[in-house]
Amino acid sequence: MGIDYKKELENAAKSMILIHRLETLIKLIIRIIINKVNVTHAGILLHNKKRDSFVLTVSRGRMGKKIPEGFMRIEKDHPLIQFFVNKEGRIYTGEDVIDYRMIKKLIRNRRFADKRAYFEEIKQLMDDLEIVACLPAYFRNDLLGIILLGKKVHGHWFNRGEISFFEALASDVAMAILNAQLFEDKEKESERRYKLFTGSIMALAKEIEVKDHYTAGHTERVIDYSLAIANKLKEKKIYDFTPEFMEDLRIASLLHDVGKIGIPENILNKNEKLNDEEFNVIKKHTNIGVSILEPIKDFLRDALLGIKYHHERCDGTGYPEGLKDAQIPLIASIVGVADSYDAMITDRPYRKALSKEDAIFEIKRCAGLQFKPEIADVMLELYGEGKI
Amino acid sequence: MGIDYKKELENAAKSMILIHRLETLIKLIIRIIINKVNVTHAGILLHNKKRDSFVLTVSRGRMGKKIPEGFMRIEKDHPLIQFFVNKEGRIYTGEDVIDYRMIKKLIRNRRFADKRAYFEEIKQLMDDLEIVACLPAYFRNDLLGIILLGKKVHGHWFNRGEISFFEALASDVAMAILNAQLFEDKEKESERRYKLFTGSIMALAKEIEVKDHYTAGHTERVIDYSLAIANKLKEKKIYDFTPEFMEDLRIASLLHDVGKIGIPENILNKNEKLNDEEFNVIKKHTNIGVSILEPIKDFLRDALLGIKYHHERCDGTGYPEGLKDAQIPLIASIVGVADSYDAMITDRPYRKALSKEDAIFEIKRCAGLQFKPEIADVMLELYGEGKI
Repeated sequence: MGIDYKKELENAAKSMILIHRLETLIKLIIRIIINKVNVTHAGILLHNKKRDSFVLTVSRGRMGKKIPEGFMRIEKDHPLIQFFVNKEGRIYTGEDVIDYRMIKKLIRNRRFADKRAYFEEIKQLMDDLEIVACLPAYFRNDLLGIILLGKKVHGHWFNRGEISFFEALASDVAMAILNAQLFEDKEKESERRYKLFTGSIMALAKEIEVKDHYTAGHTERVIDYSLAIANKLKEKKIYDFTPEFMEDLRIASLLHDVGKIGIPENILNKNEKLNDEEFNVIKKHTNIGVSILEPIKDFLRDALLGIKYHHERCDGTGYPEGLKDAQIPLIASIVGVADSYDAMITDRPYRKALSKEDAIFEIKRCAGLQFKPEIADVMLELYGEGKI
Repeated sequence: MGIDYKKELENAAKSMILIHRLETLIKLIIRIIINKVNVTHAGILLHNKKRDSFVLTVSRGRMGKKIPEGFMRIEKDHPLIQFFVNKEGRIYTGEDVIDYRMIKKLIRNRRFADKRAYFEEIKQLMDDLEIVACLPAYFRNDLLGIILLGKKVHGHWFNRGEISFFEALASDVAMAILNAQLFEDKEKESERRYKLFTGSIMALAKEIEVKDHYTAGHTERVIDYSLAIANKLKEKKIYDFTPEFMEDLRIASLLHDVGKIGIPENILNKNEKLNDEEFNVIKKHTNIGVSILEPIKDFLRDALLGIKYHHERCDGTGYPEGLKDAQIPLIASIVGVADSYDAMITDRPYRKALSKEDAIFEIKRCAGLQFKPEIADVMLELYGEGKI
């Protein structure tokens, strides 16, 4: 066959499969083709599912040649697409590809005289884009895209062996594209669901905040502070957190006050300082949170510990269980400091807000009593850096 | 090379890449190897990330031979794993694979006398499993798994050409395995997030239900009824719904009363029939729901229409906008019927529940007035089939 780049191209095609970002994949494919096959420029017309048309996703060339990028969209009824969608090529030429010389022959072929305008339109597009070959990428019978090749740098036409090798290559490309599309779809689904989860809880938390006299955004700020604390602890190598822990911490911060939905409004709403009895009702919110979330406790993992124990204190005078020091889960200690800090720097009906400086001073003063000392230290640092 | 199955095997390897279910993939790989290579049995030791050990995931054989399935786990420090993890094979044999004759030679080799026990342990495992070759599947430098091959059915040993071909094949297998693992991880993440979203909203909805005198499980039942209605409309080809619509419908049903969190408890809690003024406050819950969810409206897609308009009526006397007939989004009409049906068959403080039969009769009576006629018809059918 005399294709010296064949093996290299095959290996390159294999490595494509783990590229799950569609745009990166397409760029890589184009770069591989341009470098290995040594053409002036190349591009891919990629099927856009939503619009059911074909978009020139990206194209880079050597030697200054370029197909204009992103601007071109070809509708499904264009002859070039029809040629491949209906596998008409097989009728006219017995092939699944289009090359420039072939299309010129078809235009001159009297047998297909009634199709001349149709072939002319394909040739016109190839002229405009300065391409000499179009390779369809199918998965099963679906046309996923069309690879467009410019001329070889050294000026020769592609030979038969090259063309049929490209046909096989295009099917690998199709597989990689489909794999990436499926992965991206799954990723988008996952992101949407995360946004739905955090967004709707955040929205509901705002309703609770209003009743609880917090300034709007308490929940959001507790998330920010918690993550800042964890990142600083990690940076200083005091603890090493997995990505799972970080996600659980975010969720614990998001849901830490969810149990307040079960506290009567007249207590939550009260403008004066609470009496002991009322405060005992408020204290139930951590356990109420846990029991509300009982049906999804397996999915919450460690976040549940953060929700349950964020009002425990190092000296054992916290609630709900009066845990001490190392008995308190770290996730709860972090949420606890973040929550207290935001409470201190916020106006409440029965007292004015502290300044941030005074709040940090108060946290340092209560290190080892209310707050875990490492976290109190880290708060001072974060404050010094203007991060909280 | 004389490997007649080479091309077939390569093509089979390509098609693996779109199999994203790890278990299915492993089974397919084993089946391909057994059939194409014609060995008595085969298996894969797959690296388990969580336990950091290697598990014999699955193995099927011809001729009644089998490696016991699922029971075997090999720790990371076993010589067979060490041989591959550290690429020790290259030191002893210059190869990345183990075959049975090679390991026997190594045992007899005086140069490696201090390693005899180590090689013996590998041979023992191969004897126990009746395998004659072990092929490591690497991605970059990570050992993802080890393919285990039994004897050829016709009794010959593998030749050098075959062994080195297997080495290449194993790297394709590794790629497919990694691809499937990444896909499964993404899928699990997406499912976890969906469970977190629906589970936490459902949990919060229960709190609202209690205050709103609904029997527990109102939200869950509205979801069930809505989906039953949509499925029946689809089955009868009255409408065709996309999977996206079905997900939006589920979310709309889940969140339809979310705005009630913004209604004062004393009105929501009231045990007598509400007066006009109080009822006007209750009516605000649809718009409150929309404004609560404003920050995530893009992710909610059509679900937002269901939340906003599920109290509209065909005759234009509903709320919040008094829309009529076809002006009411279909998703809202479905949630509206599901919600009303559950309200009718539930005891309220100021009236007893209707029987299901009477509720269906009432829905039929109000077809075209309150409810969309097609949906009222479908409710009758669902009731007849015992589905609601």
